[in-house]
Amino acid sequence: MRIGSSIAFSQPHSLYSFASIVGQKEGEGPMKNYFDKIEADPTFGEKNWEKAESRLQSDTFALALQKGRLQQMDIDCIIAGDLINQCTGSSFAVRETKIPYLGVYGACSTMAESLLIAGILIDGGFSGKSAAVTSSHFSTAERQFRFPLSYGGQRTPTAQWTCTASGAAVVSAEGGAPFLMGGCIGKIADLGVTDTSNMGAAMAPAAADTIMRYLQDTQTNPEDYDAIVTGDLGNIGSPLLIDLLLKQGINITAQHQDCGSLMFDEQKQDTHAGGSGCGCSASILCGYYLPKLQNNEFKKILFAATGALLSAMSPQQGESIPGICHLVEIRSQEGLAC
Amino acid sequence: MRIGSSIAFSQPHSLYSFASIVGQKEGEGPMKNYFDKIEADPTFGEKNWEKAESRLQSDTFALALQKGRLQQMDIDCIIAGDLINQCTGSSFAVRETKIPYLGVYGACSTMAESLLIAGILIDGGFSGKSAAVTSSHFSTAERQFRFPLSYGGQRTPTAQWTCTASGAAVVSAEGGAPFLMGGCIGKIADLGVTDTSNMGAAMAPAAADTIMRYLQDTQTNPEDYDAIVTGDLGNIGSPLLIDLLLKQGINITAQHQDCGSLMFDEQKQDTHAGGSGCGCSASILCGYYLPKLQNNEFKKILFAATGALLSAMSPQQGESIPGICHLVEIRSQEGLAC
Repeated sequence: MRIGSSIAFSQPHSLYSFASIVGQKEGEGPMKNYFDKIEADPTFGEKNWEKAESRLQSDTFALALQKGRLQQMDIDCIIAGDLINQCTGSSFAVRETKIPYLGVYGACSTMAESLLIAGILIDGGFSGKSAAVTSSHFSTAERQFRFPLSYGGQRTPTAQWTCTASGAAVVSAEGGAPFLMGGCIGKIADLGVTDTSNMGAAMAPAAADTIMRYLQDTQTNPEDYDAIVTGDLGNIGSPLLIDLLLKQGINITAQHQDCGSLMFDEQKQDTHAGGSGCGCSASILCGYYLPKLQNNEFKKILFAATGALLSAMSPQQGESIPGICHLVEIRSQEGLAC
Repeated sequence: MRIGSSIAFSQPHSLYSFASIVGQKEGEGPMKNYFDKIEADPTFGEKNWEKAESRLQSDTFALALQKGRLQQMDIDCIIAGDLINQCTGSSFAVRETKIPYLGVYGACSTMAESLLIAGILIDGGFSGKSAAVTSSHFSTAERQFRFPLSYGGQRTPTAQWTCTASGAAVVSAEGGAPFLMGGCIGKIADLGVTDTSNMGAAMAPAAADTIMRYLQDTQTNPEDYDAIVTGDLGNIGSPLLIDLLLKQGINITAQHQDCGSLMFDEQKQDTHAGGSGCGCSASILCGYYLPKLQNNEFKKILFAATGALLSAMSPQQGESIPGICHLVEIRSQEGLAC
């Protein structure tokens, strides 16, 4: 059902099983105890970074299946995406399966976009179980968007650190908590930020727009949620989001949490403004939030993943950075009754 | 509803309005009388090729709205994609609107993927009208995937020509023919083709798999359709598809048509194995097939757009080319009764 510009599923859909795998640096941060697996080898046993990211993604999907005691044949569709040119991180990961595949591109907002599409497929009866999977890898992103790894370029204080991380979640018509309730498809917002080392600022307006629309459409307030989780606004974008919403009379200070800020210890890990990448919010969702929703520590959260829709070339052509934010609402068993 | 691994919508959804715009070369080919607009200026009035493609895409979307007497506010969601790194052709086109946006990546299969997602959104009641939009531009693709334009590299006989073209279609819960009936989400097929100048061969196995699954799931035969249209297998991939299906006992020789082969006159236009690109099949669908379905010249067609999920880097890393093919069934008013 459509509510304003938001989406409410006809019934809650189970987040049946989920998994997260991250790299060594991510596994040394504040979230280290929550991930299913921390892989010390950044190559994941492969010959190049791009193959490493595909391996990371397919391993995470396989682990989500294993945790749910599922087989590949139980999954009707994989909805996946990543940051590598032409989304080959996902294509080559999914190639190892025989599962129908919808490739999506929402930059770091991809996990929420994938979950929305998975939920829509389930809700329409087009699928019994579909998987949302995303990944990012520090080394694929760094050499594609920034500098050769061996160059060792100095990063600005506003820069974020692309996480080596992946999250996979199976959405199912049948099964228990946590539950996917609905969400909101993002609109592009672009207030003219041109600094590619300040993605948080570029994405904050899109997050504000999506969160505001969803609260309005569902006639809910920030206090109705245990957490309003943004993807990877990081330490610069997060206060901007709060300010933008305060100007609209919405105070999310008490509920707001950001996966980019949660991923690293800024002081100890030299990661500047926080983590980023399709796998950042996906791994923290699947590693930290979903288990806490499963055991009712959280009852209701909004997961609002944010993406910066630029390429390595577009800023060189004088373009500003378009931001987008897709949102899904997730509830625990007890949250259903609220 | 799910039928096997295929999708049947609960009711036919209107392809309410649609438009196609192509470049000069495409406008000199056999399809020249069918496109809404042929633009002689390859820059579309912009300063670089990437902006030109975005302009082409947003102009085509605007024309689809205009032809349907629609406003931007009538559209609940744009589902769009293209071949440029990080899909910026679409991001910067959609940025000019205030419409919710799902970015997708299926290479040249993107139009069918977008139509499937649009149909699924409509079918679930999540949208009244959604638009599927894709584009490609010879010059953005050439310099990204192949050689600098000014280099003037010699192309092999099996190479295809990326079309400067865009198609946009509005799918609507209400409205007349042609109608979107359902379809089939593609699986990745990769038989090990590594020649990036022979995409048709790389994509043919995926097309065979999707078409076969859809015919089996719907218990239909090739003769039930006026045309089985593939995206851009071109002159090399098309006979391979027919052979692959013949080996499975399915003969589509009489029904098969290919947008890549239809786009250019191989002899006169020096385009070798045919056209390709997200805009190739999209512009021919919106310019040629949908009008013929609107006036009942065709009653039932399958539109099976094909994509090669490689990047410029993946073949250099020794990877073969994964192919995918998404399919939608479209019927005329009279086709509904068949």
